[in-house]
Amino acid sequence: MHLTLAAAEALVIDALKRSGVEEGNARAVARALVAAEAAGQGGHGLRRVVAYAAQAKSGKVDGIAKPIVFQPFPSIIQIDACHGYAYPAFDLAVPLLSEMARKQGIALAAIRRSHHAGVLALTVERFAEAGLVALMVANATASMAAWGGRKPVFGTNPIAFAAPVPADDPIVIDLALSRVARGKIMAARQKGASIPADWAFDRDGQPTTDAVAALEGTMVPSGEAKGAALAMMVEILAAPLAGANFSFESTSLFDDQGAAPGLGQMLIVINPEASGGSFAASRLGELAAEISSDPGVRLPGRRGQNARKYALEHGLEVEDDVIDAILAI
Amino acid sequence: MHLTLAAAEALVIDALKRSGVEEGNARAVARALVAAEAAGQGGHGLRRVVAYAAQAKSGKVDGIAKPIVFQPFPSIIQIDACHGYAYPAFDLAVPLLSEMARKQGIALAAIRRSHHAGVLALTVERFAEAGLVALMVANATASMAAWGGRKPVFGTNPIAFAAPVPADDPIVIDLALSRVARGKIMAARQKGASIPADWAFDRDGQPTTDAVAALEGTMVPSGEAKGAALAMMVEILAAPLAGANFSFESTSLFDDQGAAPGLGQMLIVINPEASGGSFAASRLGELAAEISSDPGVRLPGRRGQNARKYALEHGLEVEDDVIDAILAI
Repeated sequence: MHLTLAAAEALVIDALKRSGVEEGNARAVARALVAAEAAGQGGHGLRRVVAYAAQAKSGKVDGIAKPIVFQPFPSIIQIDACHGYAYPAFDLAVPLLSEMARKQGIALAAIRRSHHAGVLALTVERFAEAGLVALMVANATASMAAWGGRKPVFGTNPIAFAAPVPADDPIVIDLALSRVARGKIMAARQKGASIPADWAFDRDGQPTTDAVAALEGTMVPSGEAKGAALAMMVEILAAPLAGANFSFESTSLFDDQGAAPGLGQMLIVINPEASGGSFAASRLGELAAEISSDPGVRLPGRRGQNARKYALEHGLEVEDDVIDAILAI
Repeated sequence: MHLTLAAAEALVIDALKRSGVEEGNARAVARALVAAEAAGQGGHGLRRVVAYAAQAKSGKVDGIAKPIVFQPFPSIIQIDACHGYAYPAFDLAVPLLSEMARKQGIALAAIRRSHHAGVLALTVERFAEAGLVALMVANATASMAAWGGRKPVFGTNPIAFAAPVPADDPIVIDLALSRVARGKIMAARQKGASIPADWAFDRDGQPTTDAVAALEGTMVPSGEAKGAALAMMVEILAAPLAGANFSFESTSLFDDQGAAPGLGQMLIVINPEASGGSFAASRLGELAAEISSDPGVRLPGRRGQNARKYALEHGLEVEDDVIDAILAI
């Protein structure tokens, strides 16, 4: 089905409100999910609406919660998402952190009792569009082991980063620390297909080509031991340093069973001129130009930005089953 | 040859002073290089003394320069290493950043006109030993391309991270973003041996097993496209955001030819209680315990910490050719 972005948002807002979500929260969630869909990240887009709505109905997510901010130190805000959706907490963080980073040089937001972080790129990009540099990490339901281990202790724990480029779209990096997305293994299981041996480990920590054994085991980190170490870094920043649940304590984002996930996110925002001086912006431009001058290289973030521009003009194509499922809520 | 740590430091101090390095700078460099050697990181240890000394003699590094601090914003210090060695700048940053992080919650040091960053683990660990969390990045002579490209634009651009664990040694992560160290390829070239096909690309961006072609080409990033993206993130933080040279503008750290390297480093230090609340320390302990409870998993940093404890008690074994080369300076 073909939809304008505004129509897609209205569809999501309606479904969430019917599930007991407060209007402002429903709008924030709808904006984020439709933006993810428009950026070509369907896995974090409209396909999530059914689970989001079911969780609001069961109380796994608090649809009427409003995030609470506390500023215990000049360069830190703690945000308690109060087991609501994550996006209202991000919307709160963006203007506050931007102002703090301009005054202090660097500022941090630690978000606890939170939910699915969605496409981190879309959050960090908002800072870069205002001339700031942002780093964001999030934990997620446990699916990766520490290197050498068998127990899932970390989520695929993404790292996102955005930096402004003068007179151009920002550089936007957004990567999960597993070699492949877990969704790829779920798709293989559904089709009864095998998977490459470097995607996952079975329950005994051995490489497996069996999608069922892989889903009972753990994901292979991107860059093996190094990726596992970075996932540990993300876990430390997003859980103990944010007052949030560990990945291995959190519940699934895909069903309406059990306690709230209570995940954590951390945002660090830097004023480039504060650290790099008055030439920082032009030097960012020089670096982007040098990187782009190599044939075959595309700056990170461009695919999503181009997809979004296309969707803004031409609207979205969404599978009928996705729309039907949302209308059926 | 067998040496106590104090004897090894005295040897380095002496060699540097004979090369025109000011005594305080020589001491800072000696401490850092001997600590690297003691941690089992010989590639950043005593083998560097000959090049360090030659650079001081030729003026590629300024042996008498003292780093200058400027605090333009409450949570930021800019350190101009003035083309001296990096370690005096790090020694200056540690107490200042620690105090700032305790007051502000988070603090950043941007270091420019700097030199070889050595073992980043040893710098971030100093903050963790004082109960703080530290993240450090550094750029380096260009040897990696952006993903899909052929031109070396990034160094192997390491990321280091340390977090305190109550009543235990800190967790310390330190990784370069190339799949393997460039030194491994240089060793293969010396022996006339071939290298695995996933270590490096040749000048045309194609995988190569020829060590000579590899050294004329670029290093494969750890985790392929994801590692290349993280190297770009590190480059942005360590160069434009620190007012430093880009990796592709810097000169070699291994010879005494050309201009000063002018590399950059960035340190970000967080007070865990400021972002995570009063339970942050005990939650860090819980996480470390959960990770360690998996048989086969060792917390990152333990190997270096154990090597250092052994060296403190039993001294260092250093190859005779390394000692002879230092004595010949």
